[in-house]
Amino acid sequence: MNLLILKAEDISNNVAHVTGRQLDHVFDIHNAKKGDTINVGLLNGPMGIGKILTIDNSKMSLALTLDLSPPKPLPLTMILALPRPKMLRRILQTISAMGVKELYLVNSNRVEKSYWQSPFLSPKSIEEQLLLGLEQAKDTTLPNVHLRKLFKPFVEDELLKIAKDSLALVAHPSTDNRCPVDCDVSVTLAIGPEGGFIPYEIDLLKKHNFKATHVGERILRVENAIPAIISRLFPG
Amino acid sequence: MNLLILKAEDISNNVAHVTGRQLDHVFDIHNAKKGDTINVGLLNGPMGIGKILTIDNSKMSLALTLDLSPPKPLPLTMILALPRPKMLRRILQTISAMGVKELYLVNSNRVEKSYWQSPFLSPKSIEEQLLLGLEQAKDTTLPNVHLRKLFKPFVEDELLKIAKDSLALVAHPSTDNRCPVDCDVSVTLAIGPEGGFIPYEIDLLKKHNFKATHVGERILRVENAIPAIISRLFPG
Repeated sequence: MNLLILKAEDISNNVAHVTGRQLDHVFDIHNAKKGDTINVGLLNGPMGIGKILTIDNSKMSLALTLDLSPPKPLPLTMILALPRPKMLRRILQTISAMGVKELYLVNSNRVEKSYWQSPFLSPKSIEEQLLLGLEQAKDTTLPNVHLRKLFKPFVEDELLKIAKDSLALVAHPSTDNRCPVDCDVSVTLAIGPEGGFIPYEIDLLKKHNFKATHVGERILRVENAIPAIISRLFPG
Repeated sequence: MNLLILKAEDISNNVAHVTGRQLDHVFDIHNAKKGDTINVGLLNGPMGIGKILTIDNSKMSLALTLDLSPPKPLPLTMILALPRPKMLRRILQTISAMGVKELYLVNSNRVEKSYWQSPFLSPKSIEEQLLLGLEQAKDTTLPNVHLRKLFKPFVEDELLKIAKDSLALVAHPSTDNRCPVDCDVSVTLAIGPEGGFIPYEIDLLKKHNFKATHVGERILRVENAIPAIISRLFPG
């Protein structure tokens, strides 16, 4: 945790009250004591420092100075085939830490139906993972995550509007088009499941103006492909 | 598994005999049967296809045609602070899948001493993870992994020679130097532990010609920093 993220309801009169997981982390890892300052941010708001007024193993109070802007959002909308639950949580953290602010989790032929039943898809579970990513990256802007359980209607009815005025790319190892570097336009990026989108899905995306692109001849797991592609697309 | 990797001892008269984990995977996931072909490679050798001659749930034999070269190694030597054991295995897979062929796992102030006792550091365990990375990426060239339990002697006695004639970089968020893109020289890249190298370590690396570099203002976990940096350094 590189940034302690506070919610508006944790704060009154510029003093924050912290308990639970975040307090445990500050207490155990940072070994913090009264008078220390720690990096804090207001969820979807500014960042700054908090000076510890009181701390014990059940609660901490912090005097806040929030005068910094969070990092700029990446101009990127990601369309991601729903990962298996074991990986979903980690990938949500990654996406949040990398600065993606719009994520569509979509179905695909190679997504197992059971994945959509995962408790990790509850709004509360998703938010928990996104917050961990923000705390890691030092950012406060919570990504928006949208679930789309039907691929074809999503592509045909929504995707043109979502991708409007952006460079639309689909990560696909079997192509000659290398991923562009340091784009100066916004990007809509589709990434398939392990095993990839099936040809029908690639064709449907191509019909909706998506261009296949790759980041090398080696086939990467989704969790590695995401940082590999994003860090080429944008200088960070 | 996108490539079934065979060892020389599995092969006689151009026929390979496969059992265990690899057979289970072919049987369960690919639902393979006699006459099917699968992608195969010889460890540290060529790649190609294997045609299934016989298969049951205890063994499989394959007629081999190995006429393709594996992908070119990345011109990259990585110096990595030993990750915690839970992440080590995943990170070894990532490094192998990304095409790194020389990896030094080194100590650092923020590496817990107990990490060096992990059974995942046994040569057999390391090789298992590297093979999984090669199978994922479709590569056959096994990376060399070197363990260095003392940071200062490693840097002072070995690192100049290791990094000779290469661009020497250390990933460090607190710098203004953005990571270069698509290098046409070989690179030696140092990546610290969670929490980063301490100032003494950064200074020692700088004294040995390493230049600090970053991939954006967000602080990434090591497992995300590795693909993010590699994919900027090399076009893949």
